[in-house]
Amino acid sequence: MNLYEKRLSRVRTAMQEQGLDTLILTPGAAMRYVSGFTEPGSRFLALVVPDDKPCVLIVPMLNAGQARGNAAGITDIRPWDDADGWEAVTGPLAKDLMLDIGIVGVDDEMPARFVLKLQEMLPTALFRPASLALAPLRSVKDTLELAALQRAADATDALIPVAFAACREGATESEVSQAIGQAIAQAGHEDSFAPIVGTGPNGASPHHATGRTKIRRGDVVVMDFGAKVDGYHGDITRMAAVGETSDEAKHVYDVVYRAYRAGVTAVQPGATGHDVDAAARKVITDAGYGEFFIHRTGHSIGLDDHEPPYMIAGNYAKLVPGNCFSVEPGIYLPGKFGIRLENIVTVKEDGTAHVFNEAIAPELPIL
Amino acid sequence: MNLYEKRLSRVRTAMQEQGLDTLILTPGAAMRYVSGFTEPGSRFLALVVPDDKPCVLIVPMLNAGQARGNAAGITDIRPWDDADGWEAVTGPLAKDLMLDIGIVGVDDEMPARFVLKLQEMLPTALFRPASLALAPLRSVKDTLELAALQRAADATDALIPVAFAACREGATESEVSQAIGQAIAQAGHEDSFAPIVGTGPNGASPHHATGRTKIRRGDVVVMDFGAKVDGYHGDITRMAAVGETSDEAKHVYDVVYRAYRAGVTAVQPGATGHDVDAAARKVITDAGYGEFFIHRTGHSIGLDDHEPPYMIAGNYAKLVPGNCFSVEPGIYLPGKFGIRLENIVTVKEDGTAHVFNEAIAPELPIL
Repeated sequence: MNLYEKRLSRVRTAMQEQGLDTLILTPGAAMRYVSGFTEPGSRFLALVVPDDKPCVLIVPMLNAGQARGNAAGITDIRPWDDADGWEAVTGPLAKDLMLDIGIVGVDDEMPARFVLKLQEMLPTALFRPASLALAPLRSVKDTLELAALQRAADATDALIPVAFAACREGATESEVSQAIGQAIAQAGHEDSFAPIVGTGPNGASPHHATGRTKIRRGDVVVMDFGAKVDGYHGDITRMAAVGETSDEAKHVYDVVYRAYRAGVTAVQPGATGHDVDAAARKVITDAGYGEFFIHRTGHSIGLDDHEPPYMIAGNYAKLVPGNCFSVEPGIYLPGKFGIRLENIVTVKEDGTAHVFNEAIAPELPIL
Repeated sequence: MNLYEKRLSRVRTAMQEQGLDTLILTPGAAMRYVSGFTEPGSRFLALVVPDDKPCVLIVPMLNAGQARGNAAGITDIRPWDDADGWEAVTGPLAKDLMLDIGIVGVDDEMPARFVLKLQEMLPTALFRPASLALAPLRSVKDTLELAALQRAADATDALIPVAFAACREGATESEVSQAIGQAIAQAGHEDSFAPIVGTGPNGASPHHATGRTKIRRGDVVVMDFGAKVDGYHGDITRMAAVGETSDEAKHVYDVVYRAYRAGVTAVQPGATGHDVDAAARKVITDAGYGEFFIHRTGHSIGLDDHEPPYMIAGNYAKLVPGNCFSVEPGIYLPGKFGIRLENIVTVKEDGTAHVFNEAIAPELPIL
């Protein structure tokens, strides 16, 4: 069996366990995970996975060529043309597969316009998120996936000197972001997401919209970026101060650094996402900054940049070897600055953490 | 009233006409159209538009800062934190607004994971696409939107010399695509979509995945790209031959050029999307290539790259001033090459077309 045949076999077992009769996946990470195939576009394109029959690809006519080259060897390709619409092909297939008397797992990212239309076409079917079956499988990376995540981490680490070089007094956030983006393109990769750069008080907004603000002397700059390699995402956050900065910034950096270390160290046999979050959060709370750490400690990563499971209070599922996720505590002081540090880690066979990325500097880098 | 107050008033009228009691919009073009606000991310973020009460923004805690700066002056911002989840804020609001006994228009692009959860939270509500109310409004651009689309078209036209300069023997499709992408970034814009470059036989796949294929002497190259300015998309397709090429390619270019001209000329008072498609298609069919024109003639454009209405057989709605759409016929000869030509046009007050972009060369450019 090739990779995708093996995955499909595991997917079908998980479907049966979750009571899903059919999956309907639209382009994105889930489709790519199951079949190796995905194709961007606004038209309806779907991989239909019955629990006991061969898969079918429903594709716009203008993607039929790409679909025929799919790595999973799916041979039942059903193109639809613009004049007839996707319902003309999907309706008869749904009837053949008797989807109307079953439970359909739809891609978690499927746009509502398709979900609502499928519900209208199949008023007696039940609709559930496909992630019921797929998320547990996707959360445990196999050897090939771990290797791809390491390549993504390496490509991401290679951007750190680029980011630091671009980060200087008078440069705008956008210019730093563009320098990172260009380095990703020159290396032949895609970005995992548009690089986030926030300088001074802008950094206090964790997902600040990178803009035309110029870096001023003494500013603390948040840089959050990643390269995507073979579909797998990199994602790190690094900090720098441009010129001498306040003792407060250095102190907060130290707290966040120790919180990051505590989060990584909490990855131990039997630990949960809750434990990782609690360990990092305790350092920040003990230092008096608890109210300024306003997000979870981490997200899993793979074919999506943000995947379940999350390192978050209340997630009591035990971590298992092959889990890959960010550890990224932060402190955000409104009107002043924000400091976040992030690397990607995986759980080794012995239950402890392996960090994919370069070590984070223990003290705030001053450029 | 400011721009967004005016829009909101028209949106509410359309909601009443369509029987939608509430809209729930997630980040993207619809949210931006209604409120000026949007914010990327994987967490639940929603603009709730009741038909008779003030709007509410439900936002992740880490986006609360951006949300408070929204251009529409929405003051009811309800942040949720990772530990409690978005349902903790959305549930009580849904109860206050009595969404369970109403018809909810959900964003057409809302991911299924949110749609299914909302349906689970509100089992007695009916769910419809928000586009029922929004698409007719969004399809008629106002003066400010037309100006933004002209800026996007100008920024897109400025990429043509860059694309042609990069398009030379031995260069890969990706290199041409990256040259276009870098020029977009250097101009301070975003791309409308990843530039599509297909050389030789690859061009016969209309949405070819730009890759490492090298341009060979005599190849015909499809280049489809656009710059996004202030949220509004540009989108054009240009062709070039690298070195002397076949008489067949020149002939097919001539047919597609005449089809493009016929499509633009068909924009007349009282014309429909069907008419525009039929006019372009007739030229191609008459030349004997009908079976190789495998997509609709055009899509509307604005805050989304592809919007309804479409220039397609069966669309008998009359075009009205302010409609903005592509005219992009193509002929795709498997194993040989593909030729597509595309500009964006708008319907003027007199019912005829204004082309936003530079004129297309009447003969295949030979580089």
